[in-house]
Amino acid sequence: MNLKYDRSITFPKGFRANGIASGIKQNGLPDLGIIVSDSIANTAAVFTQNKFQAAPILVSKDNLAGPAPKSRGIIVNSGCANALTGKAGIKSAQRVVAEVAKHLRISKKEVLTASTGVIGRQLPTDVIIESIPALVSGLDNESDGVFSQSIMTTDKFPKQVAVEVPISKNKSFRIGATAKGAGMIHPNMATMLCFITTDADIEHKQLQTLLRRAVGASFNTITVDGDTSTNDSVFLMANGLSGTKLRTLGELKIFESTLKTVLRELATMIVRDGEGATRFVRLIVEAAATYDEAVKVGRAIGVSPLVKTAIFGGDPNWGRVLSAVGNCEARFNPAKVELRIGSYSVFKKNEPQKVDLSVIEHLFSQKEIEMTIRLNAGRESAQVFTCDLSYDYVKINGEYTT
Amino acid sequence: MNLKYDRSITFPKGFRANGIASGIKQNGLPDLGIIVSDSIANTAAVFTQNKFQAAPILVSKDNLAGPAPKSRGIIVNSGCANALTGKAGIKSAQRVVAEVAKHLRISKKEVLTASTGVIGRQLPTDVIIESIPALVSGLDNESDGVFSQSIMTTDKFPKQVAVEVPISKNKSFRIGATAKGAGMIHPNMATMLCFITTDADIEHKQLQTLLRRAVGASFNTITVDGDTSTNDSVFLMANGLSGTKLRTLGELKIFESTLKTVLRELATMIVRDGEGATRFVRLIVEAAATYDEAVKVGRAIGVSPLVKTAIFGGDPNWGRVLSAVGNCEARFNPAKVELRIGSYSVFKKNEPQKVDLSVIEHLFSQKEIEMTIRLNAGRESAQVFTCDLSYDYVKINGEYTT
Repeated sequence: MNLKYDRSITFPKGFRANGIASGIKQNGLPDLGIIVSDSIANTAAVFTQNKFQAAPILVSKDNLAGPAPKSRGIIVNSGCANALTGKAGIKSAQRVVAEVAKHLRISKKEVLTASTGVIGRQLPTDVIIESIPALVSGLDNESDGVFSQSIMTTDKFPKQVAVEVPISKNKSFRIGATAKGAGMIHPNMATMLCFITTDADIEHKQLQTLLRRAVGASFNTITVDGDTSTNDSVFLMANGLSGTKLRTLGELKIFESTLKTVLRELATMIVRDGEGATRFVRLIVEAAATYDEAVKVGRAIGVSPLVKTAIFGGDPNWGRVLSAVGNCEARFNPAKVELRIGSYSVFKKNEPQKVDLSVIEHLFSQKEIEMTIRLNAGRESAQVFTCDLSYDYVKINGEYTT
Repeated sequence: MNLKYDRSITFPKGFRANGIASGIKQNGLPDLGIIVSDSIANTAAVFTQNKFQAAPILVSKDNLAGPAPKSRGIIVNSGCANALTGKAGIKSAQRVVAEVAKHLRISKKEVLTASTGVIGRQLPTDVIIESIPALVSGLDNESDGVFSQSIMTTDKFPKQVAVEVPISKNKSFRIGATAKGAGMIHPNMATMLCFITTDADIEHKQLQTLLRRAVGASFNTITVDGDTSTNDSVFLMANGLSGTKLRTLGELKIFESTLKTVLRELATMIVRDGEGATRFVRLIVEAAATYDEAVKVGRAIGVSPLVKTAIFGGDPNWGRVLSAVGNCEARFNPAKVELRIGSYSVFKKNEPQKVDLSVIEHLFSQKEIEMTIRLNAGRESAQVFTCDLSYDYVKINGEYTT
């Protein structure tokens, strides 16, 4: 698959975007972005499982309610999450949506919204409203880059990917996507936003199912659901403007696997850009009783501060990895668990293995570390990606609002 | 209750202890400790829920098996956890126990053991065996202080407490206890050890029940079970040498409430000495549907790296606290949740409250921070104690084994 990393949401036909610095952020960086489809697009979305849902999520859910959710545009801001802001927060999100609809001359039911930033502060609505004319007038089909920047918070780089996939001689479709993440990844509240566009023609029912599956196989292995921010949102707009109808099971399979690849790319970028991250860790959990339990084991390791700090320090303290596994509620017999660091088995059949500690130390000093946990409890496997916990993570998060 | 902080396990009658630097630790600090009762003591114990249990736990469980567990002594080392060490690890623990029994001229079934330190390394048994004669010959009833030091790992101070409680005119009993903790507290694997002695005369059945309840009301609110290290152990020896028999419900209630107070004191000290901790946080969860759910909510906040780093930075980012609550599986209606920082309500009835941010900033800059989460979902309350996550936590844990 020929992934393009310099393009995202405006690569598919009939999508335009823009991003500007409206002044929500004090530092003058882009903080307001918009995506618009030239025609109405079938739309799927996945939102946070957090019991406190931010105002933009409530407003978007409202607009997507019903059997055939559609949209024309999405307005997004960074710098303020508009979460835990009560009725005033909902009014603010509605006002921004209405203003965008007015300038695009579409129904306000066709505009979705998302926010990311500090929780518990009211949205500076006036600042945003003032900037909407400029934001809309700058819409074009090459501004995906600045959109990707406008959604960043503590992200160090914009995350984007696009791809064109041929279906037959004269038929192809495109997918473009961008995301923001950072945060500590697995943990509780690093807001993740992702916007996906496609010019494929796909029916509603399929679209939501495909998105849910692809999110399960990508963002949920670094963590989204269950343990999510007040604002996490993933949107997928399909406007059909390529003329490529995907109806057969085979065609839909191609779309699904492409979507999974695209979202996995973004998920990996999010981990690499984890707040303060200095090392990327690939956790392979093998032979679990179920896929969910394999992911659970990987996440138990990935969320452990003791494991994460050991990795930051390049400290081959593998006992902490197994101790994290031992605390996990997945089903396995500890006497059958094997732990490999790279290709070296360090613990197997209830016995520590003879290994050259300097080899393990060397593996732990790399930028990319791979560990395999073989549970020998079944046939399912999963990969979970995580990063280390560094001084910079503490610094970034100790000084976030102030 | 007149708690004494300069005494611990040898304050009750008929208990002797000692602690020495045997050479397990490279830095010359005490690393080997022993507790001995002059007569056989009814013994209760609570161990880690981790699926990987360290060798000393397996050996101690074996010795405590049966309907009437008793013991005469406990040998403890720091500097090496003897966990994930396979059959060799079990043999090492058995050899140390046997050697102690030989020098004390008691049965090896009467000796318990515990270890704390790095996981996955074999116990330096020869070093320990060589030191046992000196350890035993130095036993006396005033060496509780050096015992408390001998069990420390990254602890900055020894944790001990003792108390004498009158039951009637001429009857009283004493309880002494010491613990080691540090680690990040709530998280996964900071080993916690606690040793409690009493000269009260209590029957087996009661003893185990009382210990389990007291641990539930103390260490489990800072975290032990479910989320525990390979080595966590709490031992309670009751030798009856005060001559005070506790048999009536009223007498047992007095013992239980004393034990809870003692263990809560130690639990609080453990949090204050959390690795790198600079602030102590008291989380009061009110009006939960059940006590367990109240604890769950407190722990969800206490384990959140985003909350912990905000507290370290003195950053009044209260949205992160509610976001952690929102991710928790306890039952509540988010629209009914109230959050107070100190006595200031910051969020109530789904609305952020008007508060002077500088007041909240001031509260967050204190060494002790109190937050109350009122769920309005029932009648149960719980307190959970936690600490912040600082640069030093990362430093301590990034450099632990090396």
